[in-house]
Amino acid sequence: MVPLILLIAIIAGVLSIAAAIYFTIIVMKKDRGNEKMIEVSGYIETGAKHFLWVQYLVLAVFVGVLFLIILLFLPSEMTGHEIPILSSIGLNWHQALAYLIGSAASMFAGWLGLIVGVKTNTRAAWGVTKSVKEGFDIAFFGGSVMGLAVVGVALLGVGGIYWIFVPALTVEWGATIATAYATKVVLGFSFGASTIALFMKCGGGIFTKTADVGADLVGKAEYNLPEDDVRNPATIADNVGDNVGDIAGMGSDLLDSYVASIVAAMILGTTFGILGFEIYFVILPILVAAVGLVASLIGIFLVKWLGRENPGKALNLGTYLATLIVAVFIAILIWILTSQIPDSSEKLWRDYFAIVIGLASGIIIGWTSDYFTREDKPPTKNIALAAEEGHAVTILSGFSYGLISVVPPALGIIVAMAVAFMLDGVFGVALAAVGMLSIVGTIVSNDAFGPIVDNSRAIAEQGGLGEDVIRNADMLDAAGNTAKAITKGFAIGSANLTVLALLFSFAQEIEEITGTAINMNLLDIKILIGAFIGVVIPALFSALLILSVQKNAAKMVLEIRRQFEEKPGILEGTEPADFNRTIAIATKGALVELILPSIISFTVPVIVGLIFGVAALGAFLAGAILSGFVFAIMMSNAGGAWDNAKKWIEDGNLGGKGTETHKAAITGDTVGDPFKDTSGPSINTLLVVMSLTSSVFMGLMLAVGANGLIGDLLGPEEYINNPIAIGTILLVLLCVVLAGILLWAIMKIIKHPKVMEKIAKKKD
Amino acid sequence: MVPLILLIAIIAGVLSIAAAIYFTIIVMKKDRGNEKMIEVSGYIETGAKHFLWVQYLVLAVFVGVLFLIILLFLPSEMTGHEIPILSSIGLNWHQALAYLIGSAASMFAGWLGLIVGVKTNTRAAWGVTKSVKEGFDIAFFGGSVMGLAVVGVALLGVGGIYWIFVPALTVEWGATIATAYATKVVLGFSFGASTIALFMKCGGGIFTKTADVGADLVGKAEYNLPEDDVRNPATIADNVGDNVGDIAGMGSDLLDSYVASIVAAMILGTTFGILGFEIYFVILPILVAAVGLVASLIGIFLVKWLGRENPGKALNLGTYLATLIVAVFIAILIWILTSQIPDSSEKLWRDYFAIVIGLASGIIIGWTSDYFTREDKPPTKNIALAAEEGHAVTILSGFSYGLISVVPPALGIIVAMAVAFMLDGVFGVALAAVGMLSIVGTIVSNDAFGPIVDNSRAIAEQGGLGEDVIRNADMLDAAGNTAKAITKGFAIGSANLTVLALLFSFAQEIEEITGTAINMNLLDIKILIGAFIGVVIPALFSALLILSVQKNAAKMVLEIRRQFEEKPGILEGTEPADFNRTIAIATKGALVELILPSIISFTVPVIVGLIFGVAALGAFLAGAILSGFVFAIMMSNAGGAWDNAKKWIEDGNLGGKGTETHKAAITGDTVGDPFKDTSGPSINTLLVVMSLTSSVFMGLMLAVGANGLIGDLLGPEEYINNPIAIGTILLVLLCVVLAGILLWAIMKIIKHPKVMEKIAKKKD
Repeated sequence: MVPLILLIAIIAGVLSIAAAIYFTIIVMKKDRGNEKMIEVSGYIETGAKHFLWVQYLVLAVFVGVLFLIILLFLPSEMTGHEIPILSSIGLNWHQALAYLIGSAASMFAGWLGLIVGVKTNTRAAWGVTKSVKEGFDIAFFGGSVMGLAVVGVALLGVGGIYWIFVPALTVEWGATIATAYATKVVLGFSFGASTIALFMKCGGGIFTKTADVGADLVGKAEYNLPEDDVRNPATIADNVGDNVGDIAGMGSDLLDSYVASIVAAMILGTTFGILGFEIYFVILPILVAAVGLVASLIGIFLVKWLGRENPGKALNLGTYLATLIVAVFIAILIWILTSQIPDSSEKLWRDYFAIVIGLASGIIIGWTSDYFTREDKPPTKNIALAAEEGHAVTILSGFSYGLISVVPPALGIIVAMAVAFMLDGVFGVALAAVGMLSIVGTIVSNDAFGPIVDNSRAIAEQGGLGEDVIRNADMLDAAGNTAKAITKGFAIGSANLTVLALLFSFAQEIEEITGTAINMNLLDIKILIGAFIGVVIPALFSALLILSVQKNAAKMVLEIRRQFEEKPGILEGTEPADFNRTIAIATKGALVELILPSIISFTVPVIVGLIFGVAALGAFLAGAILSGFVFAIMMSNAGGAWDNAKKWIEDGNLGGKGTETHKAAITGDTVGDPFKDTSGPSINTLLVVMSLTSSVFMGLMLAVGANGLIGDLLGPEEYINNPIAIGTILLVLLCVVLAGILLWAIMKIIKHPKVMEKIAKKKD
Repeated sequence: MVPLILLIAIIAGVLSIAAAIYFTIIVMKKDRGNEKMIEVSGYIETGAKHFLWVQYLVLAVFVGVLFLIILLFLPSEMTGHEIPILSSIGLNWHQALAYLIGSAASMFAGWLGLIVGVKTNTRAAWGVTKSVKEGFDIAFFGGSVMGLAVVGVALLGVGGIYWIFVPALTVEWGATIATAYATKVVLGFSFGASTIALFMKCGGGIFTKTADVGADLVGKAEYNLPEDDVRNPATIADNVGDNVGDIAGMGSDLLDSYVASIVAAMILGTTFGILGFEIYFVILPILVAAVGLVASLIGIFLVKWLGRENPGKALNLGTYLATLIVAVFIAILIWILTSQIPDSSEKLWRDYFAIVIGLASGIIIGWTSDYFTREDKPPTKNIALAAEEGHAVTILSGFSYGLISVVPPALGIIVAMAVAFMLDGVFGVALAAVGMLSIVGTIVSNDAFGPIVDNSRAIAEQGGLGEDVIRNADMLDAAGNTAKAITKGFAIGSANLTVLALLFSFAQEIEEITGTAINMNLLDIKILIGAFIGVVIPALFSALLILSVQKNAAKMVLEIRRQFEEKPGILEGTEPADFNRTIAIATKGALVELILPSIISFTVPVIVGLIFGVAALGAFLAGAILSGFVFAIMMSNAGGAWDNAKKWIEDGNLGGKGTETHKAAITGDTVGDPFKDTSGPSINTLLVVMSLTSSVFMGLMLAVGANGLIGDLLGPEEYINNPIAIGTILLVLLCVVLAGILLWAIMKIIKHPKVMEKIAKKKD
């Protein structure tokens, strides 16, 4: 039976959704401001909906294909080592359905957060006319909806699946198998959330920078329009992009890590618990998450209360307080659990400290990102000084500091991992990841605050609310940026620890199915090859995303120029710019350019596993995790530092705006834009997707043979291979071909101008 | 006994040195041109000698310290698993002496190559006044001296050590131990060559870019002086830099890989040979190298003969022909060996194909580098087109293509490694590395040709030889650049395969000493941590080198400005610029900035091994090799592509010189300069040094315990640890402290202005 204590998760999940709806209602009741503001805000909302609509349309097809693959072709791992195709249609059905539900849950959270976000901006702007505090509250409540929705759907999904499956199956199979079965189903849920995250994060990242770079290059540079000027046809797309990238993208990314960390810990909990009480250790991660949610809720109210003084400080202080509260709450949880499980005191308290280590290291990694990107610290200041020597030196300096900034968080992860391992082995490492992510509600809320106040500022300007209001809106905007520095580092650190935990759970599952411990010995050529391919993939993935942004931005530039040339009235303010077309370009570009990176994310792990075997696949994941960490941190921090170096110069330092130094700093910032907002943070999602793909498709690979097609030739035989299941391979090939045709068709459809117009019309 | 066939190595080595001296004499007999040319060439020679003098002074101290450490504190691995300190002073002495000899040999090759190189430039320039062919011949012969010296000292060193030790020790210990012993001594030789390579390559890289960037930023940009104008105080330093970086640096780097690949294959040959005939497999790598040298010599004469038509084509065609010849020669060698070893036919022919795979993949990797950096191919063209959109887009585009360019050579290495492994296990992989490097004589010769003709062009300009001669000198310069694209990719690929072979030989040695096979299972936390640190190191190392260039270039800029301000006569051409000061700045800067990266290279592997154990150290090396490969290729190719994109624009495309597009392309090129000439290629040397450090200091780590100080806490105990040798640790600490004090003192001395002046004076 499921311990009653799991009810906390369901209650917390319901509470979270309820709070999200409550905050939504509060925000919606607020005044939308003057007519101009409502108009601009309306454009942004329409744009965001357009993006979501098209994105979800494509995702529906993509998710459908993956649903079918999971349903039809994935041999279940539950039936033991001999894996006939379609033998256990039960698990396939359940996992596939959970996949659909996971996707839908992530889509729902993204939709709710994004729509509330874009409805909040004008209200927050109007709020600022009353007081900074009022504006802050509205924006913060609006942002919290995303944070709460993320945590809510995660807890309800994972907790719900347990509640449905475990009691029903325990009767027939006993608690152990029932728990393991439910964990597999949850894996499907997690995979669903990940699929969405990949599209939202990468697609959002490409969208936002396409619009941003396009708007800057033509509007600002060629026509000298100020930031957020409605005459710039890309300005609305730029505002939409902020929401799409930082609310929907970041939210779905953290949801993805959050669920994955819980799943990894649950899988390890089935093995590394206390005999007879495994289920408590399986649900421990869910409980920690639930307790974390309650702490996050308290944190949200604390931030609102603290916000009176200094908004920027309030957001970060709120995070620290939420961390402290969650640490205390989890201690209480552990204390309760020790009373339920005999002789569990030592193990549970070790687990507690593993969780706390995770929590603490998340904060520390956030700090180091903050240090490397803050304008009052040496790295960013040196980059600003380098701008005095020209464009090239600015780039070299930022790139170098970005690389150096990898060292402290790497040490943070290493120490956290080592200590957590010493405390309770790989289960400890997985719990550290869960601990780090337990305050995700607070983190996502703080992060979503950023684009809302950024948009508020734009709307305040366009609504003509006067200089005082704009200055106050600027203050909120700055607070959003301060919070963002920490949340970005946090997101990368937590994703990294999560995928490490997933790596261990992956190995654990293989050991359970095959009965042989997996050995990822780098001296085996196949393992080394796996690791080699893994190390290269994040580099390739980043490069593809950066080139995508560059390609789309070039199209955007042409469109903006076209509008200015064909309708001279736009520049004079007598004719409205055509925002729909720029938004359509950004949307379409983001989706088309996603095809290749997403195919890489889903197919390369399967191909590596099929060719070189599961152990090589594990090494592939490890290689990708390590090199992905280096690239993600480097790009994120270099981008942040360039951005702030530019801002510091714009504040009047080193000659200020308009100087050659400023121009060099702008070059740094423009290089940094896709680094920090597209490719850097997308690597997280790539890693989670590849890890989950490996776990979900493991059964398929084991059916072909644990050593892969040619693994035997490249090192010792670790496993007794099944005779290669030719049928499976044929089915897989069929699948791949089908999926390829479908994706190609989708691409064609999206690329077709008529379809795009129809979609655009339908939305109007 | 040593098989008589080893005589080939000695003969080839002597032949090589003899040919180097013969070419030197030929070149020296040529006319030095007019007075102005002799003057300029004299400045360059003095500068190069100054750099060498200071560099070798510091190296003498550094090598001395490492000599003492090897001599006094390295417990020998030959005495079995129980390793008392100083027990086998014999091996320590021999290894330490071999270390000194290896260093001296590398210094000699570097000195000879560099001095002949800088004496050749004016002669080649004068040769061009007669015919392009005459100029080509002189420059090519001058460059060949470096190539031949490298191969000669390597063969004489490695072959000589065998000849000295094996017969003498076989009597007492039998052939097997004698061979193993001699192999250890050769390891010392290789480590010596590596120490020099690290300083020459990184130091040369920093020097050359300090001078280049400094000369460009002030001379060209601020004062509009043309390239190579003697009024520019940094112009001589710039010319010196080309020699220092591309002759001495590249030569010592390839010498380092060359010797290391031979050593790795020899170590593996002791185990993976045919019972009773191991010695043939131990010397097989030396024989392959010797045969390769003969092929290279023939290649050199072929290039001279082919050079009549098209110098650029001649260099590359020469490389391909040398490759073919070496493949044929090695086939003959193998055929001879099959007659000497009974039942060896299958194994030896498998080995042959492993060697050929290495050879072929070296060429293929060179081609892919060529593709990604050639102006008539899409990547470079796209980067040039991106320059139309400004500085930032140029950077993003080059960076992305650089990352994408990692994929083909990575696949090349993976396929070569896999096929070689299938042919003859890890010995096959090591032989592939030896095979790839067998044509190193040709490669280094082609590479050294570049800076010589670059300098010739400068001297022709300054000597007033007229437009026709300059145009012809330009043609030779272009030929040098074409050859360089292939040699750079080749250098990275071969270093990568070499360090992979070193990784296997490292593991093999540990297995022999401890009797336990090493397991670098990435699921062990300590292994994962080792790999994590390894992946981060090349990133950190690159960043430090780039920042060094930036820092030194800033000093150079100040000095040039100072000279122009204090002595206005310089600009008018009435007063000579003070070249010595700029050269001193570049030299001093290069050495000071080397301290931190070189400490990292030598100490991090030892620290990782001592703390986490030897298996984690192996994973550290693997992580560093894989991520180092990504960074090295990315930086090298991005830098090359930016360079050529700029040249393509300067050829009149996209508006040509002086446009905004051109300025953006210059930014790309300036970012690319330290990428392709400092940090990118230095990563090779870093990897070889770290691998050899691990092998040399292995005994020390094993004395402390194969699991390291805390490895037991982080994974299964793979070994029965010796009780931790506290004495050893204390000694090591003492060593580290001593070495630290010494390095600090060296730094102080170098930094002291008076010392620098004295050094400068002494040279005059």
